[in-house]
Amino acid sequence: MNTLDTILTRRSTRNYLPKLVEKDKLDKILLAGQFAPCGSNTQTNHFFVVQKADILQKLISLVESRFATMEVTEGMYSSIKNSIERSKKGGYIFTYNASTLIIVANKKDYGNNMADCATAVENMMITANALDLGSCWINQLRWLNEDPIILDYLHTLGLTDDERVYASLIVGYPATKDGLPIRTMPARKGNEITYLL
Amino acid sequence: MNTLDTILTRRSTRNYLPKLVEKDKLDKILLAGQFAPCGSNTQTNHFFVVQKADILQKLISLVESRFATMEVTEGMYSSIKNSIERSKKGGYIFTYNASTLIIVANKKDYGNNMADCATAVENMMITANALDLGSCWINQLRWLNEDPIILDYLHTLGLTDDERVYASLIVGYPATKDGLPIRTMPARKGNEITYLL
Repeated sequence: MNTLDTILTRRSTRNYLPKLVEKDKLDKILLAGQFAPCGSNTQTNHFFVVQKADILQKLISLVESRFATMEVTEGMYSSIKNSIERSKKGGYIFTYNASTLIIVANKKDYGNNMADCATAVENMMITANALDLGSCWINQLRWLNEDPIILDYLHTLGLTDDERVYASLIVGYPATKDGLPIRTMPARKGNEITYLL
Repeated sequence: MNTLDTILTRRSTRNYLPKLVEKDKLDKILLAGQFAPCGSNTQTNHFFVVQKADILQKLISLVESRFATMEVTEGMYSSIKNSIERSKKGGYIFTYNASTLIIVANKKDYGNNMADCATAVENMMITANALDLGSCWINQLRWLNEDPIILDYLHTLGLTDDERVYASLIVGYPATKDGLPIRTMPARKGNEITYLL
């Protein structure tokens, strides 16, 4: 696939095989993340590549337990509402059982933290597609990025006091019939363009 | 170039020829922007593609005049400080004289506005590199995205009341010896990776 096709056919994959992503593929994905643009070339993104089952499980149960303490409010963003409702029911797995979770943190007092993490995640998702791997943007750890209990646990994994999570993604082998990632290209309904040519 | 190489060799280009980017190339770049991931598939990015010389000139002079009214403060982000200092001197051109500026706006009350605009800009920058065009992330219109005078002008271009600018980029033909974009790949000094495998 050429670059534009790889970009256009990147879709969210939410069903995965338990098979681990190999280290050489992870390295390519992370290299793409590290080479994302960043404000004034600061390079302060901090990547956490999680495949260890006990750490993934701990994150899953922590996220569920924290959302379960929250209440749905009027006008709340639909995905946060879903996370709360499903967590209260129990069995909420924010990683869609993907074998790999890549968390991207950055300095909390840095104005480009969100942008730098987002571009890194996009580079990694495009590269995953190029490698025939599925991926999906994951927002839950960003929504909970000031939660003291989640922060305490992330500190044990190496997050520093001045860092917060702004984006993350799951990567893995897609559980599809042909074993390839979902690559449908539905026409865009929004994303208006105003031409001033 | 394969996709990973296109991603890894994307660098910021800050010197451009006056030559306009052709419509068919712009269309590919914008398509890549429209197919960036977004929260809950909302597709609320709004792209402004500016090539008209009088509009570019108006934006350049507005940005300079607004920064010139601001004061440098202790601990201010270096790039904002530079913008203010250069604007006070006069002759500050935040677009580096590129022939094309693409502004990306989104809903101001939407939690993923910054992330959605950032991923779209990254897709467009990678596509520009694949097309042998240079590009550079531009933050000035985001820093000034609540400035009433800039907002008034953007409204005349089609920005709606509930939208704000979160990211933008310049695109153009690079003024390099070989006519190709800068593609050096200096080793990353930061962007730490913590492996939990």
